[in-house]
Amino acid sequence: MAADAASSSPPAAITCRAAVAWGPGQPLVMEEVEVAPPGAMEIRVKVVSTSVCRSDVSAWQSKAQPDLFPRIFGHEASGVVESVGEGVTEFQVGDHVLTVFIGECKSCKHCVSGKSNMCQKLGLERKGVMHSDQKTRFSVKGKPVYHYCAVSSFSEYTVVHSGCAVKVGLTVPMDRVCLLSCGVSAGLGAAWNVANVSEGSSVVIFGLGTVGLSVSIYVAQGAKLRGASKIIGVDTNPEKQEKGKAFGVTDFINPNDLSEPVQQVIKRMTDGGADYSFECVGDTGVVSTALQSCSDGWGVTVTLGVPKAKPEVSAHYAFLLSGRTLKGSLFGGWRPKSDLPSLVDKYADKEIQVDGLVTHDIPFGDINRALELMLQNKCLRCVIHMSQ
Amino acid sequence: MAADAASSSPPAAITCRAAVAWGPGQPLVMEEVEVAPPGAMEIRVKVVSTSVCRSDVSAWQSKAQPDLFPRIFGHEASGVVESVGEGVTEFQVGDHVLTVFIGECKSCKHCVSGKSNMCQKLGLERKGVMHSDQKTRFSVKGKPVYHYCAVSSFSEYTVVHSGCAVKVGLTVPMDRVCLLSCGVSAGLGAAWNVANVSEGSSVVIFGLGTVGLSVSIYVAQGAKLRGASKIIGVDTNPEKQEKGKAFGVTDFINPNDLSEPVQQVIKRMTDGGADYSFECVGDTGVVSTALQSCSDGWGVTVTLGVPKAKPEVSAHYAFLLSGRTLKGSLFGGWRPKSDLPSLVDKYADKEIQVDGLVTHDIPFGDINRALELMLQNKCLRCVIHMSQ
Repeated sequence: MAADAASSSPPAAITCRAAVAWGPGQPLVMEEVEVAPPGAMEIRVKVVSTSVCRSDVSAWQSKAQPDLFPRIFGHEASGVVESVGEGVTEFQVGDHVLTVFIGECKSCKHCVSGKSNMCQKLGLERKGVMHSDQKTRFSVKGKPVYHYCAVSSFSEYTVVHSGCAVKVGLTVPMDRVCLLSCGVSAGLGAAWNVANVSEGSSVVIFGLGTVGLSVSIYVAQGAKLRGASKIIGVDTNPEKQEKGKAFGVTDFINPNDLSEPVQQVIKRMTDGGADYSFECVGDTGVVSTALQSCSDGWGVTVTLGVPKAKPEVSAHYAFLLSGRTLKGSLFGGWRPKSDLPSLVDKYADKEIQVDGLVTHDIPFGDINRALELMLQNKCLRCVIHMSQ
Repeated sequence: MAADAASSSPPAAITCRAAVAWGPGQPLVMEEVEVAPPGAMEIRVKVVSTSVCRSDVSAWQSKAQPDLFPRIFGHEASGVVESVGEGVTEFQVGDHVLTVFIGECKSCKHCVSGKSNMCQKLGLERKGVMHSDQKTRFSVKGKPVYHYCAVSSFSEYTVVHSGCAVKVGLTVPMDRVCLLSCGVSAGLGAAWNVANVSEGSSVVIFGLGTVGLSVSIYVAQGAKLRGASKIIGVDTNPEKQEKGKAFGVTDFINPNDLSEPVQQVIKRMTDGGADYSFECVGDTGVVSTALQSCSDGWGVTVTLGVPKAKPEVSAHYAFLLSGRTLKGSLFGGWRPKSDLPSLVDKYADKEIQVDGLVTHDIPFGDINRALELMLQNKCLRCVIHMSQ
């Protein structure tokens, strides 16, 4: 067993390349970093592919936590287990894994409940360190380098808690399945777990571009796979129409083309309001429009976006009193260890379409180009190939 | 059949006593009113008992619709069918009925869906007239008197649409079962239909007094009957503690006694947050506190109150993103015709406790006293006996 091997010859620190952010919004710099051996219940992963998610870019640009630089971003990734720490029995050296930004300890109240992915031990890490000891595993010339979401996949090697990784089959394409570790799954889960979209229903998705791009496209795909009969995409950018339709959007509305509020148009198109609406813009102001666009009596509005500005969601009470539901989730409500393997199987069986989301394959050395493409809204997903 | 009787000898107008509001907040005046015969698909009901609901008082006091006076309030009532209009086959003269402020036509999209009580034909009526012809059935000396919620039970006789009445057994006490036509059912439905409270769960109810009094007490009873293990009542009035406990509240918190935010106390009491929270204060500002008081991952917040001031509900997006649900409903989500009979059966079988809610039995002639008691927050429910 790898665990035995680890105890008989403890892994040493590794020196490798990592794309380090030295300050908010500053171009990443390729550095030689030292990656410590995995601690107890941790694994060290040789990253194979990582994609750039909108939240990486938002956190990189944010000036809210200047003390957390230098920092290594990246969390949507696939890799190979290079070594395992003390106590790890679930993984062996050579296993293929997805990293996950929220873990599943399987022992806390939330994990045991079976109805929550808000693990109390391995939940969203915001301090740039590892959950276990609140320290970093990276350094550049002795200076600690902070983590991002306890994953930090913009590095050739990284250390993650074993509860924040999910094993995948050796034949699954690593450079595509990495997208299941965040955005794709979040979108599918919003449609399947959070809204629980039903066959023949009507769905409206606000935002096919800008902030929640890949998520919203997978909301559409999730709705389509559930048999929704009408999937309306709403976006002010007409270029989003084509890609949206490829993923399941049946109708496209550009609010700029309208002479009346978009919710009125949607109500007409759906005989009184959509069954489900999704806010994927990352604008809390849109939540109220999304609520108004869905049906009273049973309409469900799911908010997925993380707003850049005003963090308060607000809505007239009457939209709730008339029987609407407003809800949200992180990572589409998936419990990473319990649920992701079945999603990976669906990808392997071609039940879900992932490859079409990748618009750019980029060598690790050009990672700043991926950030630029995302900032310019010129990509869906960029996959970074670490070995190139 | 009554319908045949009606067609062979059409009912005439009736003159009877009604408590008429001549202007917002003005004491009701006992008047001789003329009650027209029931129109097609309508029934005329001899009111036996009516209780005073908070929404009667709010609408009576409101200056928002001055044109809808003179008006006859009252909607929570029981009575006996006096005559039936053309086409009515569901009711016969002599039937005992509950009046309901939202009807069920059984043919519109919402009624047919089986999952909504927002009937498109007989939904909440806000213009003071009957659904069918937008006219009133009351007059005083030829002057039209407006309806309230298409029920207007503060009159010895009233006309309602047959879709807004529910038959009850002849042996059910009319002076108590009337409470099932609004507040009691709304509270039970919030716990059972909207939140779907589960056995062993924790529940927090904001507001055991003021606006949502009887509703909140029935949220507690509903939660207790579902086997909730902890039912926390929150109210700034310590007098609410005793009555709350009689109906199922296990723990009482007076926010004025605390030196920290109430949600922190609730989180400690419930190991991280209640499973369900209910906003029964009628203050949209409390919705955010209610959301914060329930657990991430699965917490459900139900808003029942109709706010007097700020109508916008607002909450930090993070409380949704971490897996909470915010929802509301009218009348506890019950479909009046489809669902109320089973509730009446539960009352008849003593499975639900209604009688304890009645603090005052008041003759119709003293109806203004009931309004005063409610304004002074000195009653739970006052039942008005029309024959006294």
